[in-house]
Amino acid sequence: MKPLGPIPPGFAALDGELAIGGRKVCALVKEAGGTPLFVYSRALIDARMAALRAAMPARLKIHYAMKANPFAPLLEHMADLVDGLDIASGGELAMARAAGFTPREISFAGPGKTDAELTAAIRQGVTINLESAGEARRALALGTALGVTPRLAIRVNPDFELRGSGMKMGGGAKPFGVDEGAVAPLAREIIAAGAVWRGLHIYTGSQALDAGAVIEMQGNVLDVAARLTQAIGAPLVHLNMGGGFGIPYFDKDQPLDIAAVGAALQERFASLLPELQDTEIAIELGRFLVGEAGVYLTRIVDRKESHGQVFLVCDGGLHHQLAASGNFGTVVRRNYPLAIATRFDALAEEEASVVGCLCTPLDRLAEQAQLPRADVGDLVAVFCAGAYGASASPSAFLGQGPAREMLV
Amino acid sequence: MKPLGPIPPGFAALDGELAIGGRKVCALVKEAGGTPLFVYSRALIDARMAALRAAMPARLKIHYAMKANPFAPLLEHMADLVDGLDIASGGELAMARAAGFTPREISFAGPGKTDAELTAAIRQGVTINLESAGEARRALALGTALGVTPRLAIRVNPDFELRGSGMKMGGGAKPFGVDEGAVAPLAREIIAAGAVWRGLHIYTGSQALDAGAVIEMQGNVLDVAARLTQAIGAPLVHLNMGGGFGIPYFDKDQPLDIAAVGAALQERFASLLPELQDTEIAIELGRFLVGEAGVYLTRIVDRKESHGQVFLVCDGGLHHQLAASGNFGTVVRRNYPLAIATRFDALAEEEASVVGCLCTPLDRLAEQAQLPRADVGDLVAVFCAGAYGASASPSAFLGQGPAREMLV
Repeated sequence: MKPLGPIPPGFAALDGELAIGGRKVCALVKEAGGTPLFVYSRALIDARMAALRAAMPARLKIHYAMKANPFAPLLEHMADLVDGLDIASGGELAMARAAGFTPREISFAGPGKTDAELTAAIRQGVTINLESAGEARRALALGTALGVTPRLAIRVNPDFELRGSGMKMGGGAKPFGVDEGAVAPLAREIIAAGAVWRGLHIYTGSQALDAGAVIEMQGNVLDVAARLTQAIGAPLVHLNMGGGFGIPYFDKDQPLDIAAVGAALQERFASLLPELQDTEIAIELGRFLVGEAGVYLTRIVDRKESHGQVFLVCDGGLHHQLAASGNFGTVVRRNYPLAIATRFDALAEEEASVVGCLCTPLDRLAEQAQLPRADVGDLVAVFCAGAYGASASPSAFLGQGPAREMLV
Repeated sequence: MKPLGPIPPGFAALDGELAIGGRKVCALVKEAGGTPLFVYSRALIDARMAALRAAMPARLKIHYAMKANPFAPLLEHMADLVDGLDIASGGELAMARAAGFTPREISFAGPGKTDAELTAAIRQGVTINLESAGEARRALALGTALGVTPRLAIRVNPDFELRGSGMKMGGGAKPFGVDEGAVAPLAREIIAAGAVWRGLHIYTGSQALDAGAVIEMQGNVLDVAARLTQAIGAPLVHLNMGGGFGIPYFDKDQPLDIAAVGAALQERFASLLPELQDTEIAIELGRFLVGEAGVYLTRIVDRKESHGQVFLVCDGGLHHQLAASGNFGTVVRRNYPLAIATRFDALAEEEASVVGCLCTPLDRLAEQAQLPRADVGDLVAVFCAGAYGASASPSAFLGQGPAREMLV
């Protein structure tokens, strides 16, 4: 037996069936036209945002990192909730504008920005988080050629990292950002060239569940920002402190204590160095805002036994749920939270593995899990499917195509 | 320094530039309209097929497993080269028919076939490789309802596995196929129900480079097929022996010795048990036929140094090359074969890491490789990109979209 991850709060059974936003999954599947289906809950996103606002200092701006989930209706919903949007490509810029975000709310990070992407960002007045000196010079040259003053910030590769984070993006040699020691001269060069100076972006890692690690990281970020601002010699208009807030995916994972993070940040804000007194300070979150609000629904098309083990074979799989299958940045595969959605309040009575429809042994949704007895026609729910699901999976693999998606 | 994988044979420099099918990469990129671009070589596929035909017994049929690469022009080209096609979904069935394959050439395997997929396969007269007793009964019932006799084979989950294979798909409890001991009664049930009996499919693993392991596996497959045919008591019209032929991806990988495999198979064919004398015998290969014929071309958009290390940042990445990034069925990341395509005959003179444009540390194409000095505008070639590349990667991730593809 291998444990399943913890089902996020906010999901309940209605007449024995999983309900999302007060509606039963079978009705949602019917409305969507079938499975596989991603369902995202407005109510859960709103609740998460409200809890976060309550925990964080009022001064702190909250940005959405749309790479987590770019589904158009969800993005439109986020536009009413957050203070800014972080994008990572020209494609995301187009989606962001279509969803109603204004250029002044948008900042653009990412190590491989093409001239075409930089041009679109400069033309539209989006803040560009520069990843290197070369990119800074390209942006300045493009701005001159276009006759538009670019809005430029520098992404810093700091000398520290986020302890215990799922993905480290700072500390040591990295493709992201400008090494801490090279930031001040580059910033002065940008300011001297007449660009609109938009400050610093310091993103050091993601998916941290330890409040102590996040608090330490945020303290380090504020220290680096103050140090660099002194060295640059110009006011820091904006500081993007990065994100890093994780969600529980696996057995024994505990939710991040955002009250503790918020209290520590409040304390730091009360004694900010003069350099940061007037700075607009933001964090950028993706997974933490929308990850637990999404559920992936897939129907069981076969139930079989092999050498005494039960396999529930679904019409979905890793082509929509690459991370849940254990094939995306994971060394040891563990089970995501998963349930038989059509028997949501039934007791576990057998051990079964839930696999996808792809003809590859990589396509596993749950291994040797304790589940109620399920059969062909039952719906399986994979939780924590609101971030890095639909858009981060190889949907064309084996001729399958994308899943349906809906916001309820 | 970390070694790069071996560049497959058949690629040469022309005026210092990588040439594919006799044409320089810059010209190919221009014709395609830009990068990132997958280029597949007809000549290399043809040469691979010719070498394989020469090495294998004349009696052996060769099928293409289209999951490796479903690009329409490539699929049309394969239709003229191979004796059959293996598909894994209704989507692949539609693509196969559009490419000119006839239903009699097609067989359909995969653990999660829906009723809609079974119906399409039965209507069109495609052979269905049944993955379970439940699927067999659904196929028979659908055939009756449609008034069409289904063409049915059984996929066997044998009691052995392919030693040293990259992915094991036989041996022990598996979602694939019917356990060896349950095959004969199910086959008799299918035959008694009036279906067209299409024999057995025994696929035990993929990506093996050790000829001894493949020879042993093929011997085991023939033994199992003979044993099961005796137990079933009906002639074995067709046997799909599976595939498993690997290609070298990593440093020190040696190509599979197909001459040895062919010679051993010839010997086995000369002394086949009476049950298999008249059987049509096929192998199904995907990666081995097309993998080394494909190259992924991406342009360097930034060259930067961080803490003394050089990073070449490209306009492509893991959204087209998930496996090369080390995020698909890999525990320890190793470098694929990769080169600076625009300096293909230049000597290595620096250590550099080649990364993609995605804002995630997972997006790596080569780590700490010895390369010629490359700069913004140079083209990078990732080799072994003909299989499980474009269609097996999350192309929508971070708003990027699919790569261009061309067959030359």
